[in-house]
Amino acid sequence: MNPIDFYFDFSSPYGYLASTRIDALAERHGRAVTWRPFLLGAAFKETGQRPLVEQPLRGPYFLRDFARSAGFVGVPFRLPQPFPFASLAACRAFYWLADRDPAVAHGLAQALYRAAFAEGRPIAAVDDVVGVAAPLGIAGDALRQAVEDPAVKARLRHETEQAIARGVFGSPFIIVDGEPFWGSDRLDQVERWLTTGGW
Amino acid sequence: MNPIDFYFDFSSPYGYLASTRIDALAERHGRAVTWRPFLLGAAFKETGQRPLVEQPLRGPYFLRDFARSAGFVGVPFRLPQPFPFASLAACRAFYWLADRDPAVAHGLAQALYRAAFAEGRPIAAVDDVVGVAAPLGIAGDALRQAVEDPAVKARLRHETEQAIARGVFGSPFIIVDGEPFWGSDRLDQVERWLTTGGW
Repeated sequence: MNPIDFYFDFSSPYGYLASTRIDALAERHGRAVTWRPFLLGAAFKETGQRPLVEQPLRGPYFLRDFARSAGFVGVPFRLPQPFPFASLAACRAFYWLADRDPAVAHGLAQALYRAAFAEGRPIAAVDDVVGVAAPLGIAGDALRQAVEDPAVKARLRHETEQAIARGVFGSPFIIVDGEPFWGSDRLDQVERWLTTGGW
Repeated sequence: MNPIDFYFDFSSPYGYLASTRIDALAERHGRAVTWRPFLLGAAFKETGQRPLVEQPLRGPYFLRDFARSAGFVGVPFRLPQPFPFASLAACRAFYWLADRDPAVAHGLAQALYRAAFAEGRPIAAVDDVVGVAAPLGIAGDALRQAVEDPAVKARLRHETEQAIARGVFGSPFIIVDGEPFWGSDRLDQVERWLTTGGW
């Protein structure tokens, strides 16, 4: 069966919430998950959206909803400052590793999300990413070089373009056998879709 | 206990989905619901948002998600054409009735939503609203006069301003004892909030 595509931006609280549940959900249905970080800002250029917390009226609501929605599903939540933050270095580090050892890339993604939104630590700077990566045995010097590598940069650009070409405009965004689901609050629909194949 | 405030725009598919469940949900917790239609377009002027289906990338997704989300909760769904549509006449008719007989106003709101999104019938024009209202025993001539009544117009303007002043920016938008919930996909959080008083 096809893997589930899990698109997310490392600066997305709802992406973090989904990340804590997507693997177990897929496993219940015998599916693998392909984690696909991308740059949500590139999609915003297409849709005209802006980061949630910068929007009038909507900003204060989302700050409240992030924490409430985390509590609702029982995961720790703490918003890093500043927020939102650049996820470029985290994304590039991910794809550099994904081509060498997907399991390590997956572990780094989970560790980055946990650092950012469970512990409220910054993960925007390369040094931040190196700090999160170190306990996983990922060499700092190699990571620093990788995020400046033109091939790694091109890889992320390509992944982001492909995401937008598939209609991905938010985070998290999950595609199951061609069916698109936007938002951590669509995981219950994803689960039923995997059970029934549609309705 | 305080009634639950249920804000919605008559042109909102997700408002329709919530409208089919909010009363029973509240009743399970011994609460009443105050139905509060408003003009979502006025909130969009504050937030910079536009109707969902007019947005690049997002539009095609939402057309799919409307129907899928309706199927997920087991309610009929059919999108009227044109969509989105003006909900001014429907809103004014509602508030004209709300001041005379809240139960009739509530019945009209349900009938309008059912006509629009279960049957796919237009409800934008005054004649459409009159047609939906007739089986409920609401006189067409009086309704036609009411939607042009300056006092009714002012009432809707006031309700919409008050909604925005309370932070309402989308549809549906539910406020429980000061706690705001946006979206039909937050009804599960509303239910738990009513059970536990927060978390």
